[in-house]
Amino acid sequence: MVFITRRERFSAAHRLFRNDWSDEKNYEVYGACSNPNWHGHNYILWVTVKGEIDPEIGYLCDLKTLSKIIKKYVINKLDHKNLNTEVAFMKAKMVSTENLAIAIWQELQQPITNLGVELHSVKVQETENNYVEYFGN
Amino acid sequence: MVFITRRERFSAAHRLFRNDWSDEKNYEVYGACSNPNWHGHNYILWVTVKGEIDPEIGYLCDLKTLSKIIKKYVINKLDHKNLNTEVAFMKAKMVSTENLAIAIWQELQQPITNLGVELHSVKVQETENNYVEYFGN
Amino acid sequence: MVFITRRERFSAAHRLFRNDWSDEKNYEVYGACSNPNWHGHNYILWVTVKGEIDPEIGYLCDLKTLSKIIKKYVINKLDHKNLNTEVAFMKAKMVSTENLAIAIWQELQQPITNLGVELHSVKVQETENNYVEYFGN
Amino acid sequence: MVFITRRERFSAAHRLFRNDWSDEKNYEVYGACSNPNWHGHNYILWVTVKGEIDPEIGYLCDLKTLSKIIKKYVINKLDHKNLNTEVAFMKAKMVSTENLAIAIWQELQQPITNLGVELHSVKVQETENNYVEYFGN
Amino acid sequence: MVFITRRERFSAAHRLFRNDWSDEKNYEVYGACSNPNWHGHNYILWVTVKGEIDPEIGYLCDLKTLSKIIKKYVINKLDHKNLNTEVAFMKAKMVSTENLAIAIWQELQQPITNLGVELHSVKVQETENNYVEYFGN
Amino acid sequence: MVFITRRERFSAAHRLFRNDWSDEKNYEVYGACSNPNWHGHNYILWVTVKGEIDPEIGYLCDLKTLSKIIKKYVINKLDHKNLNTEVAFMKAKMVSTENLAIAIWQELQQPITNLGVELHSVKVQETENNYVEYFGN
Repeated sequence: MVFITRRERFSAAHRLFRNDWSDEKNYEVYGACSNPNWHGHNYILWVTVKGEIDPEIGYLCDLKTLSKIIKKYVINKLDHKNLNTEVAFMKAKMVSTENLAIAIWQELQQPITNLGVELHSVKVQETENNYVEYFGN
Repeated sequence: MVFITRRERFSAAHRLFRNDWSDEKNYEVYGACSNPNWHGHNYILWVTVKGEIDPEIGYLCDLKTLSKIIKKYVINKLDHKNLNTEVAFMKAKMVSTENLAIAIWQELQQPITNLGVELHSVKVQETENNYVEYFGN
Repeated sequence: MVFITRRERFSAAHRLFRNDWSDEKNYEVYGACSNPNWHGHNYILWVTVKGEIDPEIGYLCDLKTLSKIIKKYVINKLDHKNLNTEVAFMKAKMVSTENLAIAIWQELQQPITNLGVELHSVKVQETENNYVEYFGN
Repeated sequence: MVFITRRERFSAAHRLFRNDWSDEKNYEVYGACSNPNWHGHNYILWVTVKGEIDPEIGYLCDLKTLSKIIKKYVINKLDHKNLNTEVAFMKAKMVSTENLAIAIWQELQQPITNLGVELHSVKVQETENNYVEYFGN
Repeated sequence: MVFITRRERFSAAHRLFRNDWSDEKNYEVYGACSNPNWHGHNYILWVTVKGEIDPEIGYLCDLKTLSKIIKKYVINKLDHKNLNTEVAFMKAKMVSTENLAIAIWQELQQPITNLGVELHSVKVQETENNYVEYFGN
Repeated sequence: MVFITRRERFSAAHRLFRNDWSDEKNYEVYGACSNPNWHGHNYILWVTVKGEIDPEIGYLCDLKTLSKIIKKYVINKLDHKNLNTEVAFMKAKMVSTENLAIAIWQELQQPITNLGVELHSVKVQETENNYVEYFGN
């Protein structure tokens, strides 16, 4: 079994807050991340898939196809967007990096399975000082 | 003459648009960067100052003080903010990286002169693929 | 289960040597790293914690609190210090990156458990060409 | 058990193609990577070994020796070479990053075992956007 | 005057050699870089342009257009190519990073002038340890 | 005229202090950097040289030779050393990054002139957040 990882990027706005809390309460819990006027990040996404090498082709899967899948199901929906208001698969969720990683996993699992490989992990970096990893359970 | 550079970072939301243009016209000119719901970036800022080494102290200027000045006059006003609506020194300006670099220069020039060194350049990176430099004229 | 990683940095002096060996013997085994006059590094530390997302808050744990814990128990004791002579939790240990990673794990495990998440791994990078990881057993 | 990773680099030419396919068929499957006139990369290799800390020496293994082994068995055979035509351990294999990672594992496993530690993983980065990992099975 | 820099990348094969020298003489002068079977690199290209901010648009020039120009005139001709045999603008030149930077300048100067800004510098990185800059004279 | 830059690295211990000041006074001025027990850094050095391309050889100068010069005159004297006590060319100087950059310039200027090119700049990075540049006057 071999693991191959593809890196993609998206730039987006978001905020951390609960609708049912006041701005003061949100600020108390989420700090500057709760800014009602939004802030944003250059997110970096690493998608790792695993499987056996295809004996005819000599690699795990076509990286251009993998990149297209990640763009179609994830990047195009997130890049230059407001993650709280414009992304169907984040609706009604706290837009934390944790929830983002899990949602990206859910979006990618089926299309990547269809490609003939297995999704192993989703890693989302929010700033150079923190990132989240999700392995599907 | 020696040059010393300090790196700082800020994460913020913004959009490129003109008030007197329709959303369609803005999209035509600025593309996804005109998204009315905002997007955002992890900006990286490099501030370069120059001068003679202080013979008593043995360096150009105290880096912790330089960092505090950059934070007080620039970073604290930009970090986790909406650059279009919340930053006094960007009001009524297109929030391009170019204008951001020039405005940061204008905010820093006096306080850095007061520190006894000369502001040489401001460099602002918006994504890993582009950055702007301004040298004051 | 989700994994979140926080990056912190410290700059410190150290040397590799055994008290009961001569300088020559130490040089033979540890090379330039045994220099009795010390050398130093910009160490980079990644602390990975894991757990379930808090349903009320929407993330695993507050990253600012995690950062404060790492700084209080580790960084403040290591940064701008001599790792051989000034760090209580490294006393009587060879100051290798391996022992540093294990000692950092031991310092962090209880405070991170108290935060309500589980310490997963400690990664310490000494130079851009080598790093150590420890998973607690 | 502690894990230590050493980074090494090599620059090489290669192409993806099958001898029994026409140039057109190869282009259809492998795209620009099938260019009969070759292209190349700055590959980055991370070798991770694991084991117990040697109580006498205070670390897992001597990093300079580990580096020498990687250079002798792998880097010197790959660096500034044509991976398709000049590397004995890649002969008759598709020169994909996947096959490269597995072949590097096979070259390193015995010499690293002889060093008294266990080979844990081989990671090969082809470009900043993709890398392969192999864990030996 | 403001400076904006765009980063692009290309992966290519090359060798350093003179046709009128023997392989031995080429090896003596160029070392492993003269390998007749080629080697390759992930080159990184930074193109810096300068000019005044367009008062209507609020930036120097459209970065997507700048990127398209760089791709059309340079990247598409270099990426996944053999720099010695397949690149018209490198024909009959030693394929050193120096000559590459100068040739890229010559290819870009007119199209970038047509864009309404001035080409300031071309920077080409061959490996993480060396890069060349050319400023046009 | 073309500019070529070579990157080298050294890890060393140092402290900022004046012999004629008390530890208290030194701490007041230099903070944690004055620690009498030393601290250290992974310094990164970029040496930029400039000149005309040698028409016979096709590049500015042999990079391996440039690297050897930097190692012989600078890196071998600094790496794994105590910059305050073990480096002849830093004796009686405050070991600031500024003074280090100037001293490295002075060590390299003659040997690099002998190589047939001109030393353009010396850049020394102390941490990821600060670096010093010196251009010789």
